[in-house]
Amino acid sequence: MVDLSIDSNQLEVKKALTEVAQLQSNRAFRDRNNLFYIEGVRNFIQVAENNFQIATILYSEKLLIVPPARKLVRSLRRNGVKTIKLTPEEFRIISHAKKASGIAAIVHQKWTKLHQASPNTGLCWIALEKVRHPGNLGTLIRTSEAIGGGGFIFIGKNIDPYAPDAIRATMGALFHQTLIRTTYSSLEHWICRHNCGVVGASLAGNVDFHCFKYPRSTIIFLGEERKGLSKNQQDLCHHLIRIPMVGKSDSLNLAVAGSLLLYEVYKSKTNSKSRKR
Amino acid sequence: MVDLSIDSNQLEVKKALTEVAQLQSNRAFRDRNNLFYIEGVRNFIQVAENNFQIATILYSEKLLIVPPARKLVRSLRRNGVKTIKLTPEEFRIISHAKKASGIAAIVHQKWTKLHQASPNTGLCWIALEKVRHPGNLGTLIRTSEAIGGGGFIFIGKNIDPYAPDAIRATMGALFHQTLIRTTYSSLEHWICRHNCGVVGASLAGNVDFHCFKYPRSTIIFLGEERKGLSKNQQDLCHHLIRIPMVGKSDSLNLAVAGSLLLYEVYKSKTNSKSRKR
Repeated sequence: MVDLSIDSNQLEVKKALTEVAQLQSNRAFRDRNNLFYIEGVRNFIQVAENNFQIATILYSEKLLIVPPARKLVRSLRRNGVKTIKLTPEEFRIISHAKKASGIAAIVHQKWTKLHQASPNTGLCWIALEKVRHPGNLGTLIRTSEAIGGGGFIFIGKNIDPYAPDAIRATMGALFHQTLIRTTYSSLEHWICRHNCGVVGASLAGNVDFHCFKYPRSTIIFLGEERKGLSKNQQDLCHHLIRIPMVGKSDSLNLAVAGSLLLYEVYKSKTNSKSRKR
Repeated sequence: MVDLSIDSNQLEVKKALTEVAQLQSNRAFRDRNNLFYIEGVRNFIQVAENNFQIATILYSEKLLIVPPARKLVRSLRRNGVKTIKLTPEEFRIISHAKKASGIAAIVHQKWTKLHQASPNTGLCWIALEKVRHPGNLGTLIRTSEAIGGGGFIFIGKNIDPYAPDAIRATMGALFHQTLIRTTYSSLEHWICRHNCGVVGASLAGNVDFHCFKYPRSTIIFLGEERKGLSKNQQDLCHHLIRIPMVGKSDSLNLAVAGSLLLYEVYKSKTNSKSRKR
């Protein structure tokens, strides 16, 4: 017997909730569909303002009380973006926030081709091949935006900047940074063509990061949390620099190490005239 | 009817597993008993080496294969430390590691009284009143140890450095840093007596953190993640410094911000002779 109580709207809601659950938990699903999930007023406004293509807006009339966000929903709907109305209960199923904002969206991932990018857009770039904790990646993206960094070059397929924990840690910075996925050989070619200086952070580095003279087009290459830069990765670097450590520590958190380097690049490239001493 | 199959050893195991579960999840339980839980070979060896008082060792004969750790278990048992043997299945109940190491312990918290501490032990100190994410605190502790910082002064009861997520993020640095819990008034008195310079990081700061001349006995005061330093907290500071930000960011991750300041203190206080330029 067919349950006639489930109308087409309810079917659509059910389908959307399943899609969001997949986007939250399933990397392969995100990749295959080239989509990601965001929630919250700030993220929603930022994806719209930064020309991300929104596939579906999910909102709860009752929960969404921020006027600019409500206005944006109406305006995007008029422009043909699909919107799905949820009950507060349905919204809370997909929400990870303590206080559900009532606004979420399924958004198309934005990637830039390496050959379309210039290393001189932004203060410097970060290259990465592997990160264990998405939160560390997100924190790095946040710092890169803070110093005016250009973006991130991911080598291979390991890293997913659109993982929920990564997005959360960027605090919105993700939507401003350029993201590139490429291979070693393409990156080598690009580095050579643009005459970039690739700077790797390593315990084996022989120059203190505070004293290093950062090249005009700096690419900072960071290794993964536990093992640091591999032999192959070090071979790509023109310079290996070291963050000094005393005490019993033999390593720093990846996001901390990367952020220290980003701020050194920032310092070295910013005019020191305006600083007070 | 009494179940005779549960012998006294099984009762002891059951009690210990319950205690560990409480220590992992219940802040009040940790506080009340002044205990915390650690696992893994590295942590176990470090707590022993750093004179933490171990209340109970929990281990699995089958899982624990690292000879120095096995030797340490035997030696501590000979010295009267209580040891409880677990089956691998029992051990996996309490373990949060991907690959269970077979060694865990319930350990007495170590706190130092403020009046027993000197601000000149270590390069500088960090003062905190609230941290939202224990992982951020742990990362800060890790960086503080890396630069040779003295330790942490927690104002009030908000912060628990012995929370599992904090311990994990310290990567063992927790066992080397001095931890103090105090009140505003005691801290003010101590700061005055030792002639410390309290440096707060704030968007309202008027000196770039790269250019600031850090005082001889520096206390870095950090606000919580979202709101930064409160008015009261700012009043305790002698100097407010600023980490510059460009781009669309208006804040940094707390552990990143704190680590940037710690490394600036490190740079300013370390002899620059040995550096290559």
